[in-house]
Amino acid sequence: MSALLALIASGTAVTRTELAATCGLSRSTVTQRVNRLLDTGLVVEEGNGASEGGRPPTVLALAPGGGVLLAADLGATHARLAVAGLGGTVLAETDDDIDVDDGPEAVLGLVRDGWARLLGGLGAGVPDVRGVGIGVPGPVEFSTGTVVRPPIMAGWDGFRVPGFFTEHRDVPILVDNDVNLMALGEHRGARATEDSLLYVKIGTGIGCGIVTAGRLYRGGDGAAGDIGHIRLPGHEETVCHCGNTGCVEAVASGAALVQALRAGGLDVGTARDVARLAAEGNTAARRAVRVAAGRIGEVIAAVVSFHNPRVILVGGPFTAVGDEVLAEIKAVVYRRVLPLATRTLRVETGPLGGRAGIVGAIALAQEHALSPGALARWL
Amino acid sequence: MSALLALIASGTAVTRTELAATCGLSRSTVTQRVNRLLDTGLVVEEGNGASEGGRPPTVLALAPGGGVLLAADLGATHARLAVAGLGGTVLAETDDDIDVDDGPEAVLGLVRDGWARLLGGLGAGVPDVRGVGIGVPGPVEFSTGTVVRPPIMAGWDGFRVPGFFTEHRDVPILVDNDVNLMALGEHRGARATEDSLLYVKIGTGIGCGIVTAGRLYRGGDGAAGDIGHIRLPGHEETVCHCGNTGCVEAVASGAALVQALRAGGLDVGTARDVARLAAEGNTAARRAVRVAAGRIGEVIAAVVSFHNPRVILVGGPFTAVGDEVLAEIKAVVYRRVLPLATRTLRVETGPLGGRAGIVGAIALAQEHALSPGALARWL
Repeated sequence: MSALLALIASGTAVTRTELAATCGLSRSTVTQRVNRLLDTGLVVEEGNGASEGGRPPTVLALAPGGGVLLAADLGATHARLAVAGLGGTVLAETDDDIDVDDGPEAVLGLVRDGWARLLGGLGAGVPDVRGVGIGVPGPVEFSTGTVVRPPIMAGWDGFRVPGFFTEHRDVPILVDNDVNLMALGEHRGARATEDSLLYVKIGTGIGCGIVTAGRLYRGGDGAAGDIGHIRLPGHEETVCHCGNTGCVEAVASGAALVQALRAGGLDVGTARDVARLAAEGNTAARRAVRVAAGRIGEVIAAVVSFHNPRVILVGGPFTAVGDEVLAEIKAVVYRRVLPLATRTLRVETGPLGGRAGIVGAIALAQEHALSPGALARWL
Repeated sequence: MSALLALIASGTAVTRTELAATCGLSRSTVTQRVNRLLDTGLVVEEGNGASEGGRPPTVLALAPGGGVLLAADLGATHARLAVAGLGGTVLAETDDDIDVDDGPEAVLGLVRDGWARLLGGLGAGVPDVRGVGIGVPGPVEFSTGTVVRPPIMAGWDGFRVPGFFTEHRDVPILVDNDVNLMALGEHRGARATEDSLLYVKIGTGIGCGIVTAGRLYRGGDGAAGDIGHIRLPGHEETVCHCGNTGCVEAVASGAALVQALRAGGLDVGTARDVARLAAEGNTAARRAVRVAAGRIGEVIAAVVSFHNPRVILVGGPFTAVGDEVLAEIKAVVYRRVLPLATRTLRVETGPLGGRAGIVGAIALAQEHALSPGALARWL
């Protein structure tokens, strides 16, 4: 994203003076570049800011008619869709039940229809779209938007998601793992002052998103944060859907809890059901969630030893159970990790809750829609 | 480090044309900044480079008399000391046996004497020193150079290392964990084209250094990479010196092997002894090393799942045993990690061997000696 445009879009620096100070550029360079942005029509002058004695400075903003961003956060059983302005403000949003195992054509068809409805409601259309961000519940090769050997998502292996949206072929279509986008969303939307954070999602599966130095860290192949298949001590007999044994996802995920509680005679279908029962005070569900949290704490402890994060945000349905989920995780982490790595560590519930993923998808779309390459295409 | 100076120091870009291309600056800005560097006497013109048809371009280099850097790589039982030019070239180096448990005053006294001898041999002295880099075998609060609760290093807890070297109080004195500096050293010295890498040292202890986006990643408290106390499945009965049970360092480090082989009647004192015996073909030692490598592989697998690195370099005495150490680690990693995260992963022996730490200490000293703040102090 063009540096000045990014600062204006996010509201970080919106006057020429602020832009010069933030970027370390000379006033004349900033004036020159802002003039160029004004020429494109992408940025407009929006009245005056607070005066510091002299003439009040002119406030810059993205032009309202500059276009929109499309975003989708796909989970195993839900699809949240949004249309946002270039500055990231949500203009319309929906949340629907889906079954991701219906396959890419069916699910992405619903996404296309949903976006079309939202755009129509805003009096906008495909030509207004400047960027697209999509999160999916599985591993993604980020450079091509291809789903790679997903443990869930039947029928999606090898599917190149951007290729489906032929109507948007002229704008950047970015696809990433859903948990990555939750991490990005929490960072941009609620924790922008943190240099870095980890986001751990405990749902049907278990995954982690990593923001380092203000940016999403994807690793060498886009697989970073895939902590669900780290081996847990003492569970060599539990077979995981990945083919290995003892993975934390096989022992302590929502899917594992559903299976265990069903075997105990409880009527639960999804991780959400387990979380609801536990929150309502069902003893078996509550105990199962607490034990699972402690086991996930073992894996988070390993991650803390290696990565030494300052902030870990926990998301997913089980956060609704209450403070004991965080308490169990923290207890294990503090017991297992050397003191230096935990003395400033905070473990908290992700403040954006279920909206973290869609906020991240919008942020991803925005980042790329405002990149110099993308701008050059449509200015 | 001033961007242009860094490029000239490392030899990455040494003509005005190359500097302009690499930094994306205009030719006139580069000319202006280079003239300022020439004025300081820090940079000199060093003859002509290869011509591309026209007048051959002038090659820039750091002035030979610009000063020197001091570096020390302290291990549990060794101290490697070096004096280097500002460009990083080693001018003199020694490697001596020490016992880090003699405490900071004794050990750092030896370092001071050693540096003085090396400087004297070069006809240089304290006023020529522009920066100091020191690696120690324990956790360090990087911002202050304070050793924090080290598992080994008796008597060092809370010791602020830079405060000892009062004769160098006018230059930056940087202190870091030894394994961090090995990672930095391998990156700068042998793998500069990689965007990132992990360096895993298997010695008396087990630790990991992390280079991400070309820079050392230290984590929130400087504790990143402390993988020795990650819990290994199936060893709940083994008590670690940290007070926990089942840590990989308690089960599979050089210290653990020494203890196990001694109990079996072998005469070994250090990790190096075990490695030598194994390399010579002693069956018990060889088997112990191989089993340990597989167990360390379990922890590396967890790290790969989380971090998805492209390159893991393995260092420490056991690399001398042969390819089977790497082979065991790789076998476990490939078995335990989802395919997406291992398809481009390389696991190799660190090419710099025992010199990785001192090369890293020099790189650290250089980075800070050539920073704008440090330069301002002595120009």
